[in-house]
Amino acid sequence: MATGRRLHEALSGRRLTRLEYEHALPRLQDALLDAQFTLARSRKHAVVMIVTGIPAAGRSEVVNELLGWLDPKLATVYGFHAPNDVERERPTLWRYWRLLPPKGRIAILHGGWYQDLLLGAAGLGVKTGSSPAQLRQGVARVRQLEQMLVRDGMVVCKVHLHVAPATQKKRLVRLQANKTTRWRVTQEDRWLARHYRPVERAFERTLAATDQPLAPWHVVDGTDSQHRAFEVGRQLLAAVQHADDAVPRSRNASKKAVVSAAIRARFATKPAGDALSDEEYEAELERLQGRLALLSRRKRFERHAVVAAFEGMDAAGKGGAIRRIIAALDARQFRVVPISAPTPEELARPYLWRFWFQLPPRGHYTLFDRSWYGRVLVERVRGFAQAPDWQRAYDEINEFERQLAEHRVIVAKFWLAVSREQQLERFAERDRNPLKRFKVDPEDRVNRRHWAAYQRAAQDMLARTDTPHAPWTIVPADDKRRARLTVLRALGDCIEAALD
Amino acid sequence: MATGRRLHEALSGRRLTRLEYEHALPRLQDALLDAQFTLARSRKHAVVMIVTGIPAAGRSEVVNELLGWLDPKLATVYGFHAPNDVERERPTLWRYWRLLPPKGRIAILHGGWYQDLLLGAAGLGVKTGSSPAQLRQGVARVRQLEQMLVRDGMVVCKVHLHVAPATQKKRLVRLQANKTTRWRVTQEDRWLARHYRPVERAFERTLAATDQPLAPWHVVDGTDSQHRAFEVGRQLLAAVQHADDAVPRSRNASKKAVVSAAIRARFATKPAGDALSDEEYEAELERLQGRLALLSRRKRFERHAVVAAFEGMDAAGKGGAIRRIIAALDARQFRVVPISAPTPEELARPYLWRFWFQLPPRGHYTLFDRSWYGRVLVERVRGFAQAPDWQRAYDEINEFERQLAEHRVIVAKFWLAVSREQQLERFAERDRNPLKRFKVDPEDRVNRRHWAAYQRAAQDMLARTDTPHAPWTIVPADDKRRARLTVLRALGDCIEAALD
Repeated sequence: MATGRRLHEALSGRRLTRLEYEHALPRLQDALLDAQFTLARSRKHAVVMIVTGIPAAGRSEVVNELLGWLDPKLATVYGFHAPNDVERERPTLWRYWRLLPPKGRIAILHGGWYQDLLLGAAGLGVKTGSSPAQLRQGVARVRQLEQMLVRDGMVVCKVHLHVAPATQKKRLVRLQANKTTRWRVTQEDRWLARHYRPVERAFERTLAATDQPLAPWHVVDGTDSQHRAFEVGRQLLAAVQHADDAVPRSRNASKKAVVSAAIRARFATKPAGDALSDEEYEAELERLQGRLALLSRRKRFERHAVVAAFEGMDAAGKGGAIRRIIAALDARQFRVVPISAPTPEELARPYLWRFWFQLPPRGHYTLFDRSWYGRVLVERVRGFAQAPDWQRAYDEINEFERQLAEHRVIVAKFWLAVSREQQLERFAERDRNPLKRFKVDPEDRVNRRHWAAYQRAAQDMLARTDTPHAPWTIVPADDKRRARLTVLRALGDCIEAALD
Repeated sequence: MATGRRLHEALSGRRLTRLEYEHALPRLQDALLDAQFTLARSRKHAVVMIVTGIPAAGRSEVVNELLGWLDPKLATVYGFHAPNDVERERPTLWRYWRLLPPKGRIAILHGGWYQDLLLGAAGLGVKTGSSPAQLRQGVARVRQLEQMLVRDGMVVCKVHLHVAPATQKKRLVRLQANKTTRWRVTQEDRWLARHYRPVERAFERTLAATDQPLAPWHVVDGTDSQHRAFEVGRQLLAAVQHADDAVPRSRNASKKAVVSAAIRARFATKPAGDALSDEEYEAELERLQGRLALLSRRKRFERHAVVAAFEGMDAAGKGGAIRRIIAALDARQFRVVPISAPTPEELARPYLWRFWFQLPPRGHYTLFDRSWYGRVLVERVRGFAQAPDWQRAYDEINEFERQLAEHRVIVAKFWLAVSREQQLERFAERDRNPLKRFKVDPEDRVNRRHWAAYQRAAQDMLARTDTPHAPWTIVPADDKRRARLTVLRALGDCIEAALD
């Protein structure tokens, strides 16, 4: 849709002739099946088709028709109710992230992430709100989501069905006249139909604002049932066939992060001050754990949640720090998620997918032992991700964490800075102590050889993702005990700041 | 635990000597790590450890201690709140099914499926209720669950921590005296402590009732913190090491199902009466779809859900029948789940796992295009499941469907009976028609060669799983249109009966 084009201009009133119906349709179906198989075989792309429209434009009918043409084993349809408990407790886009199809498959979404947005624009926003600022935020969020999905190899095909007011009215009357179809006309539908013109205008604006070259809108005339299904099928076909072209050329090499001396200085591995005695350590540990326990029981904490990410070289002490935190918490209140190489299931989705899956409900903690920052650390250093992919990851990560923060999730990120010498000592101790052998991984030695590259990657990461809503804490980690106390103190500070 | 043994008999008051602590403990940790790696490497078993106990017996402390000994990448801990929306809408055991670990891994459950049961027995049953009948039902459900899990290669290790009333009281007072630990003592804990004797008795009875050779209880004295962790660790070790012995010898060949002439007669493939004209078909289809639409909108329907399973030989018309049903439904109200060979993820769990995952919330439909009956059909006929495994599946399936029915889920099962000649005709048509080529699968020809074996398997299935709460409808399917009408009519009848 050319930005700014009016919806009613799509109303050609075109019908399929008998000839078209008998000849073109089977050919379209044939091509769709072919495209579907190619998609499934090559496993390079997934397809998300979103179908929106005004009431009585034929959204459900089109989707059902389409389903009859496709191989149902490779395509799934999703409709959406108002969010339930579990969904309400997560950021708005969580419910859509969860059902992103793996590469090779098609998902057809009734409304999808435009459902709330269109209703909000029309003035019916219950969940998202309808204020201009909220709508702008919603639009920006959706644009960024689609950019990320497309760059991760997903095809986003968006179709909006439209009909003239007279057609709409006639259909609604007919549906309401029959008791077996009356339920299809909701109160919302009637409201939207009564306010046809302003709703049309609001939809136009929203479509224009979310129309982007990598995920354009297609407005389809819903007047004739054969014609509209044919058109939607053609759009799906084109999207699948041109999946390879949908990914925009990678932008010019991203501007170099300015890693200042100040940033490098923050990566000190030795804490200031003297080592702690056993008594000092135990007393301070207990005090900080007690504080965390109290913070986590505060009434206000039930309106928040905590996502904490632990990064650092192997043997930096991530696991030990995490264990000191959970000792202060109710067993039902947290989940520890160790992150290692993605499974085939996870590889077939955008890389943030597996982290979205683990987001905590209100009042809970998810502690990530390694995290989404793997994209710009191990995947960058070891070449598991292409340069354009990890370069755009900084923005994607910032956006992800912004959505968490907007949803009142407290995001705390820790880089445990250990020195190369101290790491070697700890490796040696692991080799000596059979009870620590589960921590010995040949990969650790390989990573150690890339020490300088990891440090550079960590500094870039800090320069680009140390945001006000999700700040980094760099923890000098050569002294394990003081590192643990630093983590506990910083986490408590984060939570306290959020609650006050 | 020997059935009928009293809990207080486990209170030896034993403590670890310094010698034991310094020598035995590292050896236990060592053996646990070894066992964990063997478990992960062989991928023959998963382990579920359930930790229960009276308040202040040290449940959380023991679990945290244990976690420090294990490789956290291969073990996950779960605690449970009161069920949320999404969980309340499914059968009681759903939340536990969802997190069953895959083979090779350990899950440690705080309370797990005993949480509600023990509280209920003590008279605090909120969700499950505390009437003798409800408790008996709960006990039976849990016993059957554990039998199934163990026979599917899972090790179920159950530990109950106990302390004397004086110890309990002292600990609760100490916890309450400190503001950072006060929250750990819930109102429930205080109630249970005030009623120590009757609670102890109630727990004894529940443990005795759920103690079975394949999943015995171990009662551990919680008085000394080192001793109790050591004991629980030993039980876990023993469970993992003897995983292979946990599976009971397969019982004697299950009694042959009596497949009577009456049952065979029900598999007629030709419907009685004449073929329908186009007009008759369309009119009746619309009438039945309208009825289904109305039933699905009734207020009462919101208290139920529908699980429908479609089985039949290839080309019997399952997909076509399903499409006629969903045409009558709100797009947000149903999900169609096509079942094919299990993924590696699914193979690593008990075979019913992937079906539990798909259960609908209240007011919704899940339509399975093939189902859990694959276990006693294709897996039996083609030898993908061992005889003892598919033989016990009848009972397991009946239990699964009983739990659905108890939860007011309407279970409708359809066998579409097509004749061998008609199937061949449909295969030929698929070969001719390129638009149906996605339905052509070389496996279909292989299955066709096993025709007689499939028919026998289907008859056994009917004889053993045609229960009052989940009856089969055998649909003569040589006439596609009349088959669809039969399915729609039977499904409507099922729902109507449940609502009235």
